[in-house]
Amino acid sequence: MGRKVVIVGGVALGPKVGSRLKRIEPDAEITLLDKDKLISYGGCGIPYYIAGDIQEVSDLRTTMYHMLRNEEFFSNVKHFNVLTGKEVTSIDRKQQKVAFKDVDTDKQEELEYDKLVLATGSSPVHPPMPGHDLPGVYTVTDLHNAHTVKQSLTESNIESAVVVGGGAIGIEMAEALTDLWGIETTVVEMLDHVLPGALDPDLAKMFKNSLQENEVTVKTGTKLTQINGSKEQGVTSVQTSEGEIPCQLVIFSIGTRPNSGLAKEAGLSTGPNNAIQVDKRLKTSDPNIYAGGDCIELEHLMSGEYVNMPLGSLANRQGRIIANNISGKNEHFPGVVGNFCLKAFDMGIARAGLTVEQAREAGFNPESAMVTQSDRAHFYPTAKIMFIQLVADKDTRRVLGIQAMGENIDAVKARVDAVAALLPHNPNLEEISSLEVCYAPPFSSAMDIVNTAGNVLQNILDGIYVSVSPQEFLDDFFGQDCIVVDVRSPQRAKSGQKLYGEDRWINIPFSQLSEQYHQVPDNKKVFTYCNTGTTAFEAQLYLNLMGKRNVKTVQGCYGAISLLHPDFDPENP
Amino acid sequence: MGRKVVIVGGVALGPKVGSRLKRIEPDAEITLLDKDKLISYGGCGIPYYIAGDIQEVSDLRTTMYHMLRNEEFFSNVKHFNVLTGKEVTSIDRKQQKVAFKDVDTDKQEELEYDKLVLATGSSPVHPPMPGHDLPGVYTVTDLHNAHTVKQSLTESNIESAVVVGGGAIGIEMAEALTDLWGIETTVVEMLDHVLPGALDPDLAKMFKNSLQENEVTVKTGTKLTQINGSKEQGVTSVQTSEGEIPCQLVIFSIGTRPNSGLAKEAGLSTGPNNAIQVDKRLKTSDPNIYAGGDCIELEHLMSGEYVNMPLGSLANRQGRIIANNISGKNEHFPGVVGNFCLKAFDMGIARAGLTVEQAREAGFNPESAMVTQSDRAHFYPTAKIMFIQLVADKDTRRVLGIQAMGENIDAVKARVDAVAALLPHNPNLEEISSLEVCYAPPFSSAMDIVNTAGNVLQNILDGIYVSVSPQEFLDDFFGQDCIVVDVRSPQRAKSGQKLYGEDRWINIPFSQLSEQYHQVPDNKKVFTYCNTGTTAFEAQLYLNLMGKRNVKTVQGCYGAISLLHPDFDPENP
Repeated sequence: MGRKVVIVGGVALGPKVGSRLKRIEPDAEITLLDKDKLISYGGCGIPYYIAGDIQEVSDLRTTMYHMLRNEEFFSNVKHFNVLTGKEVTSIDRKQQKVAFKDVDTDKQEELEYDKLVLATGSSPVHPPMPGHDLPGVYTVTDLHNAHTVKQSLTESNIESAVVVGGGAIGIEMAEALTDLWGIETTVVEMLDHVLPGALDPDLAKMFKNSLQENEVTVKTGTKLTQINGSKEQGVTSVQTSEGEIPCQLVIFSIGTRPNSGLAKEAGLSTGPNNAIQVDKRLKTSDPNIYAGGDCIELEHLMSGEYVNMPLGSLANRQGRIIANNISGKNEHFPGVVGNFCLKAFDMGIARAGLTVEQAREAGFNPESAMVTQSDRAHFYPTAKIMFIQLVADKDTRRVLGIQAMGENIDAVKARVDAVAALLPHNPNLEEISSLEVCYAPPFSSAMDIVNTAGNVLQNILDGIYVSVSPQEFLDDFFGQDCIVVDVRSPQRAKSGQKLYGEDRWINIPFSQLSEQYHQVPDNKKVFTYCNTGTTAFEAQLYLNLMGKRNVKTVQGCYGAISLLHPDFDPENP
Repeated sequence: MGRKVVIVGGVALGPKVGSRLKRIEPDAEITLLDKDKLISYGGCGIPYYIAGDIQEVSDLRTTMYHMLRNEEFFSNVKHFNVLTGKEVTSIDRKQQKVAFKDVDTDKQEELEYDKLVLATGSSPVHPPMPGHDLPGVYTVTDLHNAHTVKQSLTESNIESAVVVGGGAIGIEMAEALTDLWGIETTVVEMLDHVLPGALDPDLAKMFKNSLQENEVTVKTGTKLTQINGSKEQGVTSVQTSEGEIPCQLVIFSIGTRPNSGLAKEAGLSTGPNNAIQVDKRLKTSDPNIYAGGDCIELEHLMSGEYVNMPLGSLANRQGRIIANNISGKNEHFPGVVGNFCLKAFDMGIARAGLTVEQAREAGFNPESAMVTQSDRAHFYPTAKIMFIQLVADKDTRRVLGIQAMGENIDAVKARVDAVAALLPHNPNLEEISSLEVCYAPPFSSAMDIVNTAGNVLQNILDGIYVSVSPQEFLDDFFGQDCIVVDVRSPQRAKSGQKLYGEDRWINIPFSQLSEQYHQVPDNKKVFTYCNTGTTAFEAQLYLNLMGKRNVKTVQGCYGAISLLHPDFDPENP
């Protein structure tokens, strides 16, 4: 008779632990319990089911080759026991057994374990505000809700929807509702910008504008206060701090809470995020109980603090480690640097590590650079502009984080994953400047944007690239008596000159700067400006050399500004 | 008066050194000399110029915003002196001066330096075989040749061409000739497979087949012996070890040689690749002379040996470091792990580190795994199959290299760049299994293929994934009395059964394996087989458990086989 292993929870980590453990310890007696009857699904795929990329809800439960992952699948194919509709009600750590009840019959049973695995996941936050329980108000983190939402989209005549929360799932849902269903969709985000945990303000605002170009209305700094409607009619509108928005559908995506109640009742340690505390081997405070996935605390390797990161990819990797450790190995899950990515319409977003704000909160002295550059050789036909924001500590030059955005979405991921792989090894900026990445014209520039980002941030810290962020520039430009020196061609500078006057928008093509630099006034704040920032930087250096100390480069220049404030310097005004 | 800096060579590294140095040391007196009149071009873009992606040869010499990088550009925009058509003939290290002559007038001049930078690049190998100087025989590494080749394509009636050398440039040229010009093109490669330095044999053969599907004929293991034709007619055919190939155009792309003659004559140290030896600061054996780019020896961080790697990306990164060091900093170029990528038709290839063969030569005890998996969540519409070959040392489990191939080319680069970033930090396989990479369904599976590759190779080294490479399987299958246990659906297994008989190709759908495993004979070599390898592995484990020790999994299974030997198990036989 083999070791008795009980797994509580059957979405991502649970099935992984069972499958892996059975492979390496065939005589283990494994039982997985889940209170739901639908298990082992790709929850992250729900927005794509709503968007119609996936036809049937069951497609989220099948393997690559169309095997449905139900109880029989695990029994016949993975050779372990899965009981669904069974809710674990308590853990008796002394006797090493769990009590569970059947969700239909309430029948109580018990099961002994040698090792217990808690894979209890997380639950969506669904705040009990007035109207929260009206028909038409949903969260979308399990397959039942996903099915109900899709059914109501098919059957009801929904014209407009409100998505509450501008995080990843909220944005993916907004895309689905707009793109497939043609529903007028408003995203309401309480904080100042979308993806608040992932992006710094400039990039977030650029991304918000790209959403709005795709017909999604985004209201940041806006608080939802009430949902209006009736039991019969369903939702009719929502009340926000910025007014009422009519809608027939409300999707809550304001985050999740780790399901740690069972663990807590059993006296296991939990952490600052109310999630289960585990060691590097993913063991809880009880040596016979492991936990992983959405319900645990994770060390953030950059901040050193505990975070809770509900992501299927982490759950899968942790599942393997738990199985290995149960079978007697010693494998560690080191923590996270916070890799994250998102596609919305034609735009890809990715980040790893800390944002400027998070770095400051974590006690660093952060500086950042926004870089605009072509993601491939600029002459290559499929080249697109990419934006990278690199964050480092001023004092130590340690790299703390990277954010990237662009239309070749895998190219965005490539830059972030490469830097992310280094982050646990505490790279400094020199390592990013010299980072060896694959090069050929269809893939990147000879000096790749990730190397450029390292170079620019080094130049900033060396005090030679004297610059402002794109938003700081806009704030200054509209707030003060400052001028732009546009070093592009006269044709391209015409737009700014027309809109703001030739006094405020001086055009000196870069090749004529050495003859015409005296046009640049000494008594005003001056911003050098070009298409991506490179030439503006060289212009700033030259002007500095000619004795002008009042000059700053606009980071990312036109490339960033055109997304941050599309009307500021349009190509055809 | 500032420091006198002379730079010899003006393609990639030279202009970078000058531009960067002038930025950080404005009073430096910089002169760049090049014997060519066309300088500062993207040589890697030449195949794309031939392919028509780039219209004019001058487009390879312009900045992103259409400024032509000629002498005036460097003088007006970068503020340093560029002299073209000036060939440096000798270096007087004692007097610290170089002698150079005008290529048109032969007029001799001299120039003093405080610091000298050698950016002399490399030259294509053009072997002096019979017929090598016939009209219609070219190399394509400079703009003059590129222009001539394109002109002859436009003006002559070329029906067929031979590309000599199956490396990156040869393959890019073959694509250009086939795709845009509709020329019947044959690639002749002396070694057993294409991209011999970059790929191991299985992946190389799969890639070769993808080229052949795109109408490029590839002849590996074939030696060119003679070029036939006349001065008047030009080339008419080539003679190879495998017969004659009629053609009107021959492109040599069999590699390059570092231009180290000038350095050697001046008594500077050179290395095993006949390239200039430099230290980590990129200084030659003379402390006043730096060198970088195609003409230097580089330390390969995995093998510890010296290599020569002509790549514009390395030149650009080294250029910055040389400029920084001349200006008094201490920055290091650590060496390379050999990142490489290539796009041909719809296929992307990338690799970093060592192949199995290179690892063996470098004294490691390598093992590798070929993994086939969807690059995105399998339910996501743009998902494509990706192939990864991961190489590690058996004894230490240190990761030595990664090769990848797939149609989402940036996704291929993403996996390789992430592992490459880690390679200098000596990761073991556990780190690849747990490597944190960005996850969302449009970008990757929850268990990303790069993590899977780590898992599979760990399983191989643990002795539980008992397997053969796809080619070993084919060799065994055709050579011996062995059988396939196909654990896919009866419908999918029909093809193999029809072609090889139900005795040799047993179909037991995986979910029925526990009832039907007794059908698997004990007295024969057995290979488990599925679509990607995952289920075949589980089947192998189960059969092992049932006492069958004669069972091996086919790595990559159908996914790899379908490219390696397209007729072996066709979907519709």
